[in-house]
Amino acid sequence: MHCQKLASLAFLLGFVSCQALSAQTKTVAERLGYQPDTKLLIIHADDLAIAHSEDSASFEALDKNYVTSASIIVPGPWLTEVADYAKAHPDADLGLHLALTSEWKTFRWGSVESKDKVPSLLDPAGTLWPLTEMVAKNAKPQEVEREYRAQIERAMALGIHPTHLDTHMGSALSTPEILAVYVKIAHEFHLPILAPKIPGDPLKLSALLSDKDVMVDSVVIANPTIQPDKWKEFYLDAIKNMKPGLTEIIVHLGHDDAELQAVMVDHPDYGSAWRQRDFDVVSSPEIKKALQDNHIVLVKWKDLRKIIQ
Amino acid sequence: MHCQKLASLAFLLGFVSCQALSAQTKTVAERLGYQPDTKLLIIHADDLAIAHSEDSASFEALDKNYVTSASIIVPGPWLTEVADYAKAHPDADLGLHLALTSEWKTFRWGSVESKDKVPSLLDPAGTLWPLTEMVAKNAKPQEVEREYRAQIERAMALGIHPTHLDTHMGSALSTPEILAVYVKIAHEFHLPILAPKIPGDPLKLSALLSDKDVMVDSVVIANPTIQPDKWKEFYLDAIKNMKPGLTEIIVHLGHDDAELQAVMVDHPDYGSAWRQRDFDVVSSPEIKKALQDNHIVLVKWKDLRKIIQ
Repeated sequence: MHCQKLASLAFLLGFVSCQALSAQTKTVAERLGYQPDTKLLIIHADDLAIAHSEDSASFEALDKNYVTSASIIVPGPWLTEVADYAKAHPDADLGLHLALTSEWKTFRWGSVESKDKVPSLLDPAGTLWPLTEMVAKNAKPQEVEREYRAQIERAMALGIHPTHLDTHMGSALSTPEILAVYVKIAHEFHLPILAPKIPGDPLKLSALLSDKDVMVDSVVIANPTIQPDKWKEFYLDAIKNMKPGLTEIIVHLGHDDAELQAVMVDHPDYGSAWRQRDFDVVSSPEIKKALQDNHIVLVKWKDLRKIIQ
Repeated sequence: MHCQKLASLAFLLGFVSCQALSAQTKTVAERLGYQPDTKLLIIHADDLAIAHSEDSASFEALDKNYVTSASIIVPGPWLTEVADYAKAHPDADLGLHLALTSEWKTFRWGSVESKDKVPSLLDPAGTLWPLTEMVAKNAKPQEVEREYRAQIERAMALGIHPTHLDTHMGSALSTPEILAVYVKIAHEFHLPILAPKIPGDPLKLSALLSDKDVMVDSVVIANPTIQPDKWKEFYLDAIKNMKPGLTEIIVHLGHDDAELQAVMVDHPDYGSAWRQRDFDVVSSPEIKKALQDNHIVLVKWKDLRKIIQ
């Protein structure tokens, strides 16, 4: 997820890193056919379909295996570009980045569902709320369900076969009622979701999941406290410190070009330079070497989809 | 208008250039306080809000008076960027490029009105029809009226005070019923519209207009038969051959960059290189000199708005 919300959650928790909440007797690694203490990693690019710059960087990262998976903002204006890519690359691991927010200043998107069916999801300009907090305050769960369903159905109608669902800016986790919708929809479509393990399980997420569902033990996302010159070090440390279990490193990829600079104007956090740095890091030989040196097994969401069926 | 439709109409007619259909006893020039045989010219940039590349080129052209006027595609994803510009530049002459089509391959927009209120305007993917012919075949006039009204109201809600209305890809001219809606809405909002004079008045447009309305005597738009190396010559000839009356030169401005290339992929007509050529021509000193040498009086749509009130 992109990710102020999850990042701030992660930040508050000193990092989302938590183990052993699973009700499963077998670890995810075992269920996937690996040794129980294998370090499994999904490297995931968020926010496809928001901009051509984002798409082209993410497609390159998928093609060159810099990332294993990615997810799509269905209301994003570049959805058809991603649908074309998905059809041309049927093995690409693409999920849906279910979105209830539209956070940029001069580049906004609305709902996929008819506006008059989801009025509680829209700000006065008719676009999705800019902040997760506004979603939590205003969004009616039945309208969230309609919108989630519309996003999934639109993606499928365009020939995208999603491998998983996750949540843009963490809005699916913003209230217990929306969280329940998120899990319900995932179960209905037989798709895995990004369900982060959080110490103490304050969201009571595990209670909503079935024994077959998979939780992610640790989520790694860059945050605004990291200095640009420490960017690679942050990810290298995360790989070095990975524990057995399932980790997801979430990145936001783009080129620091005129388009993305304009999309993300006045928003250095998760902005275009940030996304260029993420791209530069995931494509670097040091990351590839660190993954090998630390015996990391890269997995995709489609691998998880198989074991939850 | 961008403009395959009007361009093809212009092309069929050997050029949209036609005089003396006006029911007015005074010429537009006289009504504006000029000599009756003045050559009046609007240089107009279409398609604002579709892409940052389009916006930035058009804003520069407006700021430097390369164009006198421009119009906005309200369902375009970059609407807020244009709204910000409009608020910062209250003298900029900005109209609404009423859109019933979404013509690009991998970059599509939908209706501004709720989808379930305008189903006849939407293709199976839920976006506006790609071609004007599909609008003519499918669009119900009452739904066109709803969508036009929604586009105008959304622009106004964002702080845009439109100076005129025109029509993306000429879809407002595609059936007599839609044309009647276009004129009705313009009258209701007291805005001038691009109403081209066409020999024989096959659209029976003049019958819909009041004595106060203004028709454009001649519309000049580049078309695909013009070779790139003859681009400037085409516009210079158009200026040299201008007759007394009101002419509008319609251009499509953009930078031939990664974003616009992706928006207009597989579509060289009106594509990114085309828009760069248009920008290069309107910003050239030869155009400025030709306007002076031929005693052209540049006018804006807001000048026309005054005389139709």
